[in-house]
Amino acid sequence: MSPQPAALRQASPTELGVGARFSVHPMTDDFVSVILGALDDADPGGLTVQTDDVTTWVAGDDREVVAYVVEVLRLAARRTPTGHVVGSVLLSRGCPGSVTCDIGTDVSLPPAATFDLPAAGVPVGAHWALYPLGGDEHLAAIETAIDRIADFDVEVGREHFVTRLDGDLAAVLGAVATVWATLGERVQHVTTHLTVSIGSPSRRVVGTE
Amino acid sequence: MSPQPAALRQASPTELGVGARFSVHPMTDDFVSVILGALDDADPGGLTVQTDDVTTWVAGDDREVVAYVVEVLRLAARRTPTGHVVGSVLLSRGCPGSVTCDIGTDVSLPPAATFDLPAAGVPVGAHWALYPLGGDEHLAAIETAIDRIADFDVEVGREHFVTRLDGDLAAVLGAVATVWATLGERVQHVTTHLTVSIGSPSRRVVGTE
Repeated sequence: MSPQPAALRQASPTELGVGARFSVHPMTDDFVSVILGALDDADPGGLTVQTDDVTTWVAGDDREVVAYVVEVLRLAARRTPTGHVVGSVLLSRGCPGSVTCDIGTDVSLPPAATFDLPAAGVPVGAHWALYPLGGDEHLAAIETAIDRIADFDVEVGREHFVTRLDGDLAAVLGAVATVWATLGERVQHVTTHLTVSIGSPSRRVVGTE
Repeated sequence: MSPQPAALRQASPTELGVGARFSVHPMTDDFVSVILGALDDADPGGLTVQTDDVTTWVAGDDREVVAYVVEVLRLAARRTPTGHVVGSVLLSRGCPGSVTCDIGTDVSLPPAATFDLPAAGVPVGAHWALYPLGGDEHLAAIETAIDRIADFDVEVGREHFVTRLDGDLAAVLGAVATVWATLGERVQHVTTHLTVSIGSPSRRVVGTE
């Protein structure tokens, strides 16, 4: 009789390489103080945060990572005189190395977190792409995710290469994070990219039609 | 004796769904005139170009698509009083539908184009991610692509989730497009995301160290 395999413990966020890489683009001459002010005012808690001249890397628990990104974008929007801020957000899980994605054989993929974010009070329009990596079922997985995101408090539209999402900043990020984390229960390496537009004058024109 | 299979013709850009989705973020109060002016001044030639409030979609021959994106970013940088512009660029091939990626059975994947772009005269720092979708060899394909990009006139660094590229705007976009198109010779659906930072004051500080 062969021994029962030991139950695998769930991989930690660090073992999974859970995190975000994001950038904030305030459309104002005063962009330096807006970006630095928003980063200063947002509380990173126990997250690892490193900013360089292109993007900011945030690593840690995925609920905290997403809440932090929402908070930085919200604060940047509040500080921007023109009101127009765009955020570019990449969420990644399952590939802790720069190229190799070895998470070891003694851990399992954890169940998805629940992303309960309070409304940010900031309406956004966003373009979203989801990438489950490895395996032949990527299209079915993406299709399931798009179907699922319609259950959240966001408007969903289909565009070339991306899905359009409209709603509150926190609702959009929370919905995206939930389907990303849920896919991560069975696909190890999952990334998602989001361009989030706040206060676009083009959008205001559209809104008055 | 069974008949020889007919040679497959190469899929057209439209059949492959070749294109870009990009956005330009000039850090200035005058962002509207910079964005609209750059889009007006760049020649789209025979490309399909559609701008909404979040991003601009460009479809057509991949060399023309990439040249157009470089030109819009270059013109936006020239028009921005603060000099700081960030571009967010997604290139996609092999998935012409919004979710399904059916390109038919009578076509084959074409050989990669050569992206010979004249220097833009605009130094950039960029964060780059490459996603071959479907199949189990995605990491080997990414590793090969990162090795190959070092052959171009760009500086290459490894970061969490992304590869850092520094060089002329056209050199960086050309290198990324080449490895993307080359991977597309054997993987049908390949996307790549790039955040391109032009004229960041943080970068200038780094540059004086």
